[in-house]
Amino acid sequence: MVSEALQEWGTVPALWKRRHLLGVEELSAAEITLILDQAERFREVLCRRRNNLTGGDRKIPLLNGKTCVNLFFENSTRTRTSFGLAARRLGADVIEFTAATSSLAKGETIIDTAKNLEAMQIDCVVVRHGCPGTPKLLSENLNCSVLNAGDGTHEHPTQGLLDMLTIRQRFGTLKGLTVALVGDIAHSRTARSNIWGLKKLGANVIVCGPSTLVSKHWEEFGVECSYSLDAILDRVDVFNLLRIQFERQVVRPFPSIAEYAHLYAMNGERMRRTKRDVLIIAPGPINRGVEITPEVADGPHSAILEQVTNGVAVRMAVLWLTLTQENDNRK
Amino acid sequence: MVSEALQEWGTVPALWKRRHLLGVEELSAAEITLILDQAERFREVLCRRRNNLTGGDRKIPLLNGKTCVNLFFENSTRTRTSFGLAARRLGADVIEFTAATSSLAKGETIIDTAKNLEAMQIDCVVVRHGCPGTPKLLSENLNCSVLNAGDGTHEHPTQGLLDMLTIRQRFGTLKGLTVALVGDIAHSRTARSNIWGLKKLGANVIVCGPSTLVSKHWEEFGVECSYSLDAILDRVDVFNLLRIQFERQVVRPFPSIAEYAHLYAMNGERMRRTKRDVLIIAPGPINRGVEITPEVADGPHSAILEQVTNGVAVRMAVLWLTLTQENDNRK
Amino acid sequence: MVSEALQEWGTVPALWKRRHLLGVEELSAAEITLILDQAERFREVLCRRRNNLTGGDRKIPLLNGKTCVNLFFENSTRTRTSFGLAARRLGADVIEFTAATSSLAKGETIIDTAKNLEAMQIDCVVVRHGCPGTPKLLSENLNCSVLNAGDGTHEHPTQGLLDMLTIRQRFGTLKGLTVALVGDIAHSRTARSNIWGLKKLGANVIVCGPSTLVSKHWEEFGVECSYSLDAILDRVDVFNLLRIQFERQVVRPFPSIAEYAHLYAMNGERMRRTKRDVLIIAPGPINRGVEITPEVADGPHSAILEQVTNGVAVRMAVLWLTLTQENDNRK
Repeated sequence: MVSEALQEWGTVPALWKRRHLLGVEELSAAEITLILDQAERFREVLCRRRNNLTGGDRKIPLLNGKTCVNLFFENSTRTRTSFGLAARRLGADVIEFTAATSSLAKGETIIDTAKNLEAMQIDCVVVRHGCPGTPKLLSENLNCSVLNAGDGTHEHPTQGLLDMLTIRQRFGTLKGLTVALVGDIAHSRTARSNIWGLKKLGANVIVCGPSTLVSKHWEEFGVECSYSLDAILDRVDVFNLLRIQFERQVVRPFPSIAEYAHLYAMNGERMRRTKRDVLIIAPGPINRGVEITPEVADGPHSAILEQVTNGVAVRMAVLWLTLTQENDNRK
Repeated sequence: MVSEALQEWGTVPALWKRRHLLGVEELSAAEITLILDQAERFREVLCRRRNNLTGGDRKIPLLNGKTCVNLFFENSTRTRTSFGLAARRLGADVIEFTAATSSLAKGETIIDTAKNLEAMQIDCVVVRHGCPGTPKLLSENLNCSVLNAGDGTHEHPTQGLLDMLTIRQRFGTLKGLTVALVGDIAHSRTARSNIWGLKKLGANVIVCGPSTLVSKHWEEFGVECSYSLDAILDRVDVFNLLRIQFERQVVRPFPSIAEYAHLYAMNGERMRRTKRDVLIIAPGPINRGVEITPEVADGPHSAILEQVTNGVAVRMAVLWLTLTQENDNRK
Repeated sequence: MVSEALQEWGTVPALWKRRHLLGVEELSAAEITLILDQAERFREVLCRRRNNLTGGDRKIPLLNGKTCVNLFFENSTRTRTSFGLAARRLGADVIEFTAATSSLAKGETIIDTAKNLEAMQIDCVVVRHGCPGTPKLLSENLNCSVLNAGDGTHEHPTQGLLDMLTIRQRFGTLKGLTVALVGDIAHSRTARSNIWGLKKLGANVIVCGPSTLVSKHWEEFGVECSYSLDAILDRVDVFNLLRIQFERQVVRPFPSIAEYAHLYAMNGERMRRTKRDVLIIAPGPINRGVEITPEVADGPHSAILEQVTNGVAVRMAVLWLTLTQENDNRK
């Protein structure tokens, strides 16, 4: 089965050399494009209408016999499930690691825990951790692939990539588009992964939110800062409405939720002042009535659920590229 | 493999039109019989004696490439495991969703959570929730199959179906049998699923328990109410001994456990006053010494463990029927 | 696939008659050797360098169609994951049972829970429980295989076996070697499994630690007791450094961690007084700086990570032997 799949899907392009995915910042424009192209090919199979006769065809056995570990130290439904589904769709086994019931409670270091998992001859660690740099730390200590599923406020590269794929599907390209990231820029690893990727692919980026959540330092990287959503409504092609990350904030950065929603929520009234073909995306879980109202979330400009589908496809692409690459490099 | 399995197992009968299983109340007698017949066919494979050479034959790859999600908001060992095993026996992948570590803790609505799962191109959601009607709500908002694994005090259809399968295996038919549901009728979704199904298949139903747990309103549906187990012992073919659902009761409906056991426990003394071929079933986990004594639970009239085996077979049947049906209806 | 695997791997040797693995104490030297030999064969496949073309070859479909349940009542990362990986490598399905969300919380006995799992037609229960004898109790009540993954302070047989495999790989044999178990002998099921196995295979065993943690009664079984690590350094071939099981101790058996580490930690200074080819093993998770210092744990004499790899191989061997044996015995 593996050899037939190989015939259909070919080998990893020579351009791709990475065993790990730690962030979008380190990727070239060509590498990002390679991931998005591969994700589109996988997406077609993922969404193929199923029936009894062809149900089995939805699996692509490129990673048969390989094992991925989900090593999550923070709550997650969609990212954990999405990585798990992506791995299974490629024929890999998935091991779930739950921090609460683990050896870490017995005083083991995270590197020892990961090295133990690796010694069990697994092929890939998908890690989410509250501490920025944890994936990098693991990648320096392990021989298997390490994929960043979110590290503190640093990066969440597969989220950035799926956002870009969703935009590219709608507009054909990212070049020359104006993309606004709205909301909690300061605490958002998704914002950081988006900014690096969007700039590399030629988009103009605006970060928009209360001054307590938007840092001027982004201007050094060619990003425009705005404190008024109303002021930018009519010149933006894509709004990426970030969650207010209540769980990451020590001091409340605005007086009340109502205050925030009044100034920054994307609602029907504001939608009437946007470009006609504007695209609305949001890295869920969304807070309905806070950063987005139901009529916008469920409306025709929203691609929120397409993002979720694209998330599985992007993760399939990343898993295939890094786990196949890894084979050749390994001692 | 899928096509060979199809040749052996055939296609879903034209009678079956449902993509969801929300309750027994909505099923016709013919639909119930179809599920039970199919479950018996699967049961034979499930119980096939295994050895090295034929071990693989215990799997039936009818659902290869499909993915089921266990979306459980209440504690469950047997139902969750039983659905998971049933799906795997048919070749499907199973994703476990744990409410405690989910986006729901971040304020997402249950419909958004489910729509996100669906956007990952899964095929089926098996849902248990404390709120009656949750499966129906999801079925109205999702394109994939929704199977009710218990919703509050409303229904637990696969439990009702496995109880009926167990009775039918012993007696050949349900027609004309007298089945007593004993205990906590008021809080039992299992009781409700049993009552609807048993009446449809022609059985006489008695609900029996303390007046605080047995409502007279069942008489409107042709069900007999009794407050004395001793009074009905000699004319019942099947006793279904329901759990006392301590976890669902706000006010204690009887003075003490000892009091309840004295009046309603099925014990050796009472067994001597039943029909000679009486059947004892109970939807575990059983409280030994409360609704049933060990000599009865482990005795020759008990089919408690057969019920568990039948549970896997019934769930295989329901998964196959709804997930195969679903394919044809889907846009 | 199963029949091809059978051709390659052959049938279980006639010597092996067991359906369960409850402890090393009950095994003969020949049975232990058989497990270790089989584990070495599986280890080769487990560690086979992977690439796209042969990735699938890392799975050995000897247990296709079978189902193993991880029934863990105590925290565990590595043992649970190791058993799960071993089962999947052999093609079996794995069901995770979590005690906290189970029917046990509703008052069900552990035997009823296990009998319910068995009635779902599973093939194997891997059980860890704080109460010594739990696996034996289950084996007396179930028809499926029961594997002990640690029962209180009694035994942890697969840990003992993987320790022996690691020693044998380094020295070729266990016969005539001197093996010291250092630390918390009193609370360690790993120590007990090691002692029985090492003695059977002809090694000399020393138990070494504070008098509060080392019982004289081991002398009855031909084991030497020592209270000074320094006194035995130069005549030991293998040091097995046991964890201080803080979680099992009611009264603190020594004044402070620093005190313990001063007298019993294996550090660089002590290493210079050992035999030149000394082997250091430890059943993780290790407490760095307590029973072992980082320079020793990560040094050339340490086989701590090889132990982890061997753990998967040993569990594959045990699963294959017991689940294949079980088939022939079963009614």
